[in-house]
Parts: sequence; structure tokens; C-alpha cells
Amino acid sequence: MTALAKKVYLELPAPDEADFAAGRERVLGALDQKNVHLTLRALQELYPTLPDAHYRVTVTLCPAECGWDLIRVEPGDTHDALYGAALDIGSTNLAIELLHLPSGRVLSHRECTNAQTAMGTNILDRIFAVKEDRKNLARLQRLVLDDVCALLDACLLEAGLQPDDIAAMCVGGNTTMIHFFLGCDPWLVFQKPYAPAFFNPGIQPAAALGLDLRCNILCLPAVANYLGGDITAGLLMTDMDTREDAAIFLDIGTNGELALGCRDYLLVGAGAAGPALEGGVSKSGMRAEPGAVCRVRIDERNELHVQTIDDLPPEGICGSGIVDLIAEGYLAGWLNGDGTLNMGASEHIRMVWEAESHANIPAIVYASRAGKQLYFTQNDIAEFIRCKAAAHTMVATLLDASGVTPGQIGAFYLSGGFGTHLNLESAITIGMYPDLPREKFRILGNSSLAGAKQVLLDAENLARIRHFVQSATYVQFGEIDTFLENMRAAQFLPHTNASLYPSVKKRK
Amino acid sequence: MTALAKKVYLELPAPDEADFAAGRERVLGALDQKNVHLTLRALQELYPTLPDAHYRVTVTLCPAECGWDLIRVEPGDTHDALYGAALDIGSTNLAIELLHLPSGRVLSHRECTNAQTAMGTNILDRIFAVKEDRKNLARLQRLVLDDVCALLDACLLEAGLQPDDIAAMCVGGNTTMIHFFLGCDPWLVFQKPYAPAFFNPGIQPAAALGLDLRCNILCLPAVANYLGGDITAGLLMTDMDTREDAAIFLDIGTNGELALGCRDYLLVGAGAAGPALEGGVSKSGMRAEPGAVCRVRIDERNELHVQTIDDLPPEGICGSGIVDLIAEGYLAGWLNGDGTLNMGASEHIRMVWEAESHANIPAIVYASRAGKQLYFTQNDIAEFIRCKAAAHTMVATLLDASGVTPGQIGAFYLSGGFGTHLNLESAITIGMYPDLPREKFRILGNSSLAGAKQVLLDAENLARIRHFVQSATYVQFGEIDTFLENMRAAQFLPHTNASLYPSVKKRK
Repeated sequence: MTALAKKVYLELPAPDEADFAAGRERVLGALDQKNVHLTLRALQELYPTLPDAHYRVTVTLCPAECGWDLIRVEPGDTHDALYGAALDIGSTNLAIELLHLPSGRVLSHRECTNAQTAMGTNILDRIFAVKEDRKNLARLQRLVLDDVCALLDACLLEAGLQPDDIAAMCVGGNTTMIHFFLGCDPWLVFQKPYAPAFFNPGIQPAAALGLDLRCNILCLPAVANYLGGDITAGLLMTDMDTREDAAIFLDIGTNGELALGCRDYLLVGAGAAGPALEGGVSKSGMRAEPGAVCRVRIDERNELHVQTIDDLPPEGICGSGIVDLIAEGYLAGWLNGDGTLNMGASEHIRMVWEAESHANIPAIVYASRAGKQLYFTQNDIAEFIRCKAAAHTMVATLLDASGVTPGQIGAFYLSGGFGTHLNLESAITIGMYPDLPREKFRILGNSSLAGAKQVLLDAENLARIRHFVQSATYVQFGEIDTFLENMRAAQFLPHTNASLYPSVKKRK
Repeated sequence: MTALAKKVYLELPAPDEADFAAGRERVLGALDQKNVHLTLRALQELYPTLPDAHYRVTVTLCPAECGWDLIRVEPGDTHDALYGAALDIGSTNLAIELLHLPSGRVLSHRECTNAQTAMGTNILDRIFAVKEDRKNLARLQRLVLDDVCALLDACLLEAGLQPDDIAAMCVGGNTTMIHFFLGCDPWLVFQKPYAPAFFNPGIQPAAALGLDLRCNILCLPAVANYLGGDITAGLLMTDMDTREDAAIFLDIGTNGELALGCRDYLLVGAGAAGPALEGGVSKSGMRAEPGAVCRVRIDERNELHVQTIDDLPPEGICGSGIVDLIAEGYLAGWLNGDGTLNMGASEHIRMVWEAESHANIPAIVYASRAGKQLYFTQNDIAEFIRCKAAAHTMVATLLDASGVTPGQIGAFYLSGGFGTHLNLESAITIGMYPDLPREKFRILGNSSLAGAKQVLLDAENLARIRHFVQSATYVQFGEIDTFLENMRAAQFLPHTNASLYPSVKKRK
């Protein structure tokens, strides 16, 4: 494994009257690497560092677009003190990890909410904010850069390091987030024919972003507008480029991004799933934050049990709670295959007043707080089933397109917060994931951060990324005639074709 | 001729559903150049420039250390609007020229005194100021950067251009000046064994210096500590790399830098001449500024005539005036071959009180102002003759080292302010230059600025520079046993060996 950045310890001959090569030329001549450029700061460091250290120095090499930037000259042998920062810029959350590159050790880890959410929780709101007023582009960039600085400062403090110690930075993020990060207008990410400013922004110096770092920043390249560097990073965490049988990668949230492939081919696709999967539709839906109902169980005595994040009094329900609620409700007979509620099946099923439709409608009252009922309505259920049907259909479409049957799938990688915190059994029960042997599912967590980290730790991953980007065939779901029809068929628990879900059939 | 920077007009296909390559990838794919890096500012410009201009854009390519930086994306075809800035950073003066690269036209030209002179007119004073207090390094850099900004602003204003319009900048300057410009401590320029931070600083982005320019800055490389980028630039203005017979290049001032060569070899050397050549010794000596006596003539009636710069009342005498004074005085018999004054030869020769030696000493009173005498003393003459002897001996030493006789010299290039403004006949009369046929002398003026300009206009000159740097053999005058002896022999007007100066002998 060769880390993305390098430190090279040099024992240079001191100059004398026969050999008066200057410092820069002396250093460059001693390096194996070609195309090395000394940055101005490194140039400024040569004196007095070189003579003071008796010409025994360690130089830091950070990859640049073409060749290497030599970004630092330190006295003595510090080659083991080589650090990098992995960053995931999500539309909702940011995460950063400071790494000791030779060992792969994580020195510190920090996360925060993306401050851009103040200008729109939905990514499209932010894109439109820039469309309406171009000044918002600088504002959105400033928000994310300030977040990154704060996270970085906290990580550096915890690790006892300085900004100068970061030898390279690698970033995963979707195409829009990387556009904002770099101060580029992402309008064409959203606008047909979806040819934005870049899929690969190249390697940029951190200083160009105003960051107080010596290193360059490598933002992982996108495959297509909705298949960003976060997904490329995620694919690094799979073995899809080497395995013989096919695997599926799925990152599902408000949008779904997915890939199906093996060493011979790679199909990719992306589409809207809908905010319902992240708790964004129901009046009591919420993000997976403390107080959110995240687990729901209906026991054999038909009693409802809920669990909240951090065991706080319930404030609403998040995606994983909803998936449980619908799966358990379906298995317990509270709701039918088409999602309709059975009024008599539990006292939790009641009529509630819905202001928008000026009507009482059926709902599951899953909790109450301070006398106030928390419920999930018939309409919420319908909306949610549409979302899960979209997720199902995207997977089914890639399977169709590749001619692979579910039984031939060797591994099903689940990426992202939703995929990680979800109860797998519930997700299969409602028909969101295919009914595969459970051991084939692999939970990746934040694979955008993990992939960025892998690139830092092993530069060989750059070749894998190039392979993924070059070999990917983009399946446009909108152009598949049967897509909507298939989606309608999937709007059933678990599916109108029950034979696709033998394990669910067995439990029902 | 291919200019150092390029503009390329691109008529790109607009993206459609079959071809949704992103903007950056679309631009890079259309360029012939490999290793092109889009700077962050160019990346940010892709949208909305690309669609607004219907994908017909002009991109600016500026050479980087490895490959090219694509620094700008403009709508439409602007390939002819390609500009560059040539800069000469002298220890006394700065000069800048704004050029239209396709035509070579000079759009504007500005000069100023190097503000660093406030921290020491002598370059060594500035080097020592940094040695004493490292904070002075930032101060000295700030002074020269502020000068450059002011000159650039004035040039841009006159030419009606913006900072963004500058596609490349090329800088000539001695090793110390380039160190200060880049914020690098030049101590080792002065300190044995003369291996400073760099001879070639590589190509640096202007932004790293805090300059509000998109382009990169190429500082011409030095051959050795005292043979800086100003001299490399000067050599570009000669034909020493192609001619069959030998030529000499001489840049003389307080220090002398010189080269002797032809297409087969190149000898270079440098040494102190002494401040006397620039009017820096005599109490009435001054730089070549308005009011300085710059021409002196003694007519056939033994009468003295002086001319001042801008015809202002005389304030002192500058180098070219001194050379005239001594040459004319020698020819008129006011002073002897050994430099001693003949008291009776003119009423201008009088005894004057010299405070330092508490004595009256002979002097030439060459002018007076407001009743105050301006004079050049016997001691000033002796000091000046030592300096001219140093200049003579440096040339003679390179001739010796190469085995070339003065008669075999095909061209004698004179560079720098002193060499340009000097009366050639007077300089030969006093024995500072060899007694060659006058048509062999070529006055180059500010060849540091001119060479920087040539690199901007024709990138082929980069290969010539590499050739000069690689082929140069550095002659260390301090290591030549006979150097001091030869210098003593040259401390005579024109020389102890009068046969070296047949044309002077004839006039005397």
C-alpha cells in the first residue's frame, strides 16, 4: 500500500566549492519522482532549514494534477509523521477523519450538520437559490468551507497536529456538493442534459479555496450528474471490480444511487426515491436525530413497542422507524398488502383530523408525547409505499438490464445512513430490497468517507476509480418504457408478485 | 514564434442526451495540449460561460511547472487578445512592460526606483538586514511586491486592460532580487559556497505571492549566485549560442557580470567592480538622475563643458560623467597615466579641503552650484581607476581562460544602464573596455527586461535558456592566481601595456 501523499527523507551532500548546486536543485536531484514542483512555501523553507539540518531533511510530496507538489521541507527524518484528511460532504451532514497514513490509524473523527441546510434542507432548494441570486453561490460555498474549517480544527486539536501536517486531503461528495465546495454553480447538475461544470474537478490546491493548508485537495470524480464522487467512493468499498458474479451497490435516501456489476461490466443508475424514506413526508416524520422513533415492534400479543434514538421521549419517527412500522404492521395484519389500514386490528389505529384534506383519516398512533398524539396516516403510508417501490424498481431495472436474476447476486452493498440504520428484515418485508439470503447484505455505513479514506491510504485506488468511471454504463431510468409500470407493480407489500418474496410469505 | 502563453478558441459541441460530458472534460478533450490543469477560477467560470456562449469559448493556457494551467474561460473568440507582462527587478530600479504577445507590441512601459533602496542602496545591506532580523525578509518582499503592483496597475490602466488579461509574466532579476521577490532568504547568495535556496525557482502562481493575477510567473533561472536570471535574460539578447566566433557580454555596475562564448562553449564570471562606476564614491557622485553631470568634454581650447541629465543645474556627477571626465582629462593632459592630477594644466584643478583626511588635496572642480563647488578629488580618481581596472581584468581573464585574443572577438555586448549611457570612446580611452573596432560594440540597454520579453514572445527561448544554464562554465576570479596582479597592471590609463590600446595612443 502506498499512501496518496509521501514523505521522503533525504540525506543530501552539503554544498562545497566543487558542488554549489542550489537548495531546490539539490533536493529535486535527490528525488526519484519526476515532475516535482516546489510550492512557494517549500521554496521559502529551504533556507535556513537545509543548512540548519545539515542537509538532512524530510520533504512532503502531495499529488498534483500533473506530477507532484513538494509542499514542505522539515529538518531531520519525519517520514513517519505523514497525515491526511478524509472528508465527506453530504447534503445533510459533513464528516471528517484525520488519518495517520502509514498505519491507517484514525486519529480523530468529527461530524456536523451541513450549515447549508439553513438555506434549504433539499439540495434542489440550494441549486435554485443560486439560480435566483448568484450571490448565494458564494454564501453556500462559505457555509461549507466554514464547516470544513471547524471540523478540521477540532480534529487537529484532538490529534495534536497542525494544519501544515496535513499532506493530502481527499473528498467524497455528490456532484452538487462538490460544485458548492469549489464555488461552482451546479445549475447544470439539475438541468438537462445534465452536463455540469465538471464530473472530475481535478486536483486543486487547498490555498485556492482559502483554506490554511499546504496540501492539495483531491475531490473524487463523478460518473454522472447524479452519480457523484460519493458513489465512486462507495464503489471502492465493494469488490465489484474484481468479483466474478454480480454485486449490487445501493445508496438510498431521498434519492437512490445504485450500481450493479462485476469485473466485466458496471451498470449505474440514479433516481428520486422521495423524501418519505428519510421521514420527510409525514407530519411527525423527522430526521434520525435524538428523540426519533427508530425501531418499532409489534409483539405476539399485538402490542406496539417503540424505541427512540438516545432513549429520549418520542418527538417523531425517522425512516428506519417507518420501515419497521409498516413491516410490523403488515405482518400483524394492521395493514393490508395495498397499504390500507384495518381499523379494528389495533387500538393504535384511529381516525385523526387532517387539516389539509379537512377530513378524518385513518392513522397509526404510534406514540404520544405530553398528551399529543404522534401518528402516521393512511396518506403517509401510501406515499411511503410509492418511495419504497421506486427503490425496488431501480434495483429491478438494473437486474433486468444486465440479465442477472436476484438469485445470481453475490453481494448486496448498502450504503448511507438510511441503509445502515434500517432493520434489514423490515426492509425486505416491505419489499424495498430483494428477498436475498441475509448474509449477502453488506452494510457499508458512510462509504463516501470510507472511500475517500481508502484513496488516502492507498493510491492504487485512483486506478480503481478510473476503472469505475470509464467502465460505467449509465442506465437512464426515465428512458425505460416499463419503469413506471414496474413501479406500480411494486406499490404493494411486499410486491404484487408475492413469489418474489418467499421469506416474507413464510412469515405472514 | 510561439508565445509563452496561449489562447485557444474552441467550438465545442453542445451537450445533448447522447453526449453529456461535463464542461471541464469537454474543454480538455478538445485541446491538443496534454497535462492541462484547470485552475479553480477557470473551473468556476465554466458555468454559465459555456452555455451562454453556446460552447464557443476561448481558453487561456499559461505554462506551469509540469504542463499547462488553464487559467481563464472567455466567451467567443478572443485569441488575439493575448497579453503578457515582462518585469525586470533590479536592485536599484524596476521596469515593467505590458505586451501584446501575438504582435510583440509594447502596450505600456513603466519604471520606478526599487523601494527596497530605503532599506539599503547596496544589495548587501539588504541581505544583512535579513540576517539581523528575519522580519526584514517580509518587509523587503512587501516593498518589491508593492512596487510591482503599482507599476502593473499603471501599465494596465494605460493599455486599457485588466489584471485578468495577463496570461503570463516573465521576470528577470539577479539571484538576490528574485529571492526577495519570492520571499526567500538570500543569505546563501552571499555566503560561501554560494548555494542559495534556488538558482531556478520554477514557475510559481502569481496568486501564491498575493498578486491579483490569474497567471503564473516564470522567473528566469540563474547560472550561479552572482550570475542571475537578469544575466540569463541578457544572454538571450545576444547570438552567443549560435555564432562561430566568440562574443563577449558585459553587464557592469557596482558588480560586473560577464560571459564569453560562441556556439561551442560559454564561460561566465562575476566580480565586484566597486560603487565608483555608478558614482557611488565621490562626495559629489550620484546616480544617473536629473541634475547629474552625464557628459564632460574638454575642447581644443582646454575649456571644460558639462551636460546634465534633463539640463538641470548640476547637483553631482554620475558614472558616465566620471568616465568622460577622466578620459577627457587624460587626453587633455590634466591627469597622467597613473591618474595623478597636473596642478597647472587647468584652472579647474585646485586644492580642496577634504575633511576625512584633514588635508587639502588636488581635485577637478567640474562645476559649481549656488556658489558651492562640485569636485572630483585625486582620491576619487584613484578609486575609480581601481574599479575600471577590475572591469578590464574580468574581461581579460575570460579572454585568457578561453584562449581568445581581443582581435578574435566578433561582438562585444554591453548591458545595463551604465553600459548603455556611457560614452564608448571615453570608456575605451580609460581602458575599461578593450580597444576593439567600435562597430563590434552592441549596446543592449536593459537586457534583463528585454530577455524576459523575448521569453514571453517566443517560448523557444526557454530551450536557449536551458542551453545557457547547462553549458556555462563558471570561472571563479578569486581562484585565478594572476587576477590581482593583472588588475594592478590595469590600474593605469588606459593600461600599463599601452600597446593594448593603439587607438588611444594615436589620439593622445
